[in-house]
Amino acid sequence: MDSTVYDGLEKLFHEPKRMAIMSHLCHATKGASFANLKKACDLTDGNLNRHLHTLEEADAVRLVKTQVKSRPLTTVFLTEAGRNGFLNYLLALEKALVDAVSSLEPEEAEVVAAPLYEGIIF
Amino acid sequence: MDSTVYDGLEKLFHEPKRMAIMSHLCHATKGASFANLKKACDLTDGNLNRHLHTLEEADAVRLVKTQVKSRPLTTVFLTEAGRNGFLNYLLALEKALVDAVSSLEPEEAEVVAAPLYEGIIF
Repeated sequence: MDSTVYDGLEKLFHEPKRMAIMSHLCHATKGASFANLKKACDLTDGNLNRHLHTLEEADAVRLVKTQVKSRPLTTVFLTEAGRNGFLNYLLALEKALVDAVSSLEPEEAEVVAAPLYEGIIF
Repeated sequence: MDSTVYDGLEKLFHEPKRMAIMSHLCHATKGASFANLKKACDLTDGNLNRHLHTLEEADAVRLVKTQVKSRPLTTVFLTEAGRNGFLNYLLALEKALVDAVSSLEPEEAEVVAAPLYEGIIF
């Protein structure tokens, strides 16, 4: 048990909806439209706006506003700092998870680790 | 990408310091004293009190107050509901992590997954 690992969980990305937004943007290399992001992360206009504002203030995303057929279009891009920050966050999250799982009974740890075997990490 | 996995991150345990407290209690089968928990999780009296109150309200921990040589001693125990809830939280966290890592470039995913190879999960 090393409690310091939990201190590495950057609040900016630790909020579940912001984690979902950042994950979506990580593979949207050409940016994501506001409408797509809203649908993919199951958010209301107001909530997505609020989260994007927080992420933009921290220089994690960049918003580009254009017009398509006279209608406003907002496209959201990950910044380089945002991508690096999010990778560091995921690394910190892995470490916290490994610490937490190490405190479990072996049969409990096996259940918790199951998604990793089914996931695409390996 | 499945944004619904991020909704499973129970707020009660998602707070980093509460995650540290729950991890510590998971392997303290005979309970942990307030003083030990405070030191292990690097918290002040006030902050530990506040988090324990939140966890107690949610029936995740139980506080037993006794006296040892006329001095008050508080021992903190995980409840069965707390242990089950925390295991479910860790399972949800694994799933969210697998989803996030699946959105990365292969060379990024490899870096993020490194602690798992070094950890005791496998």
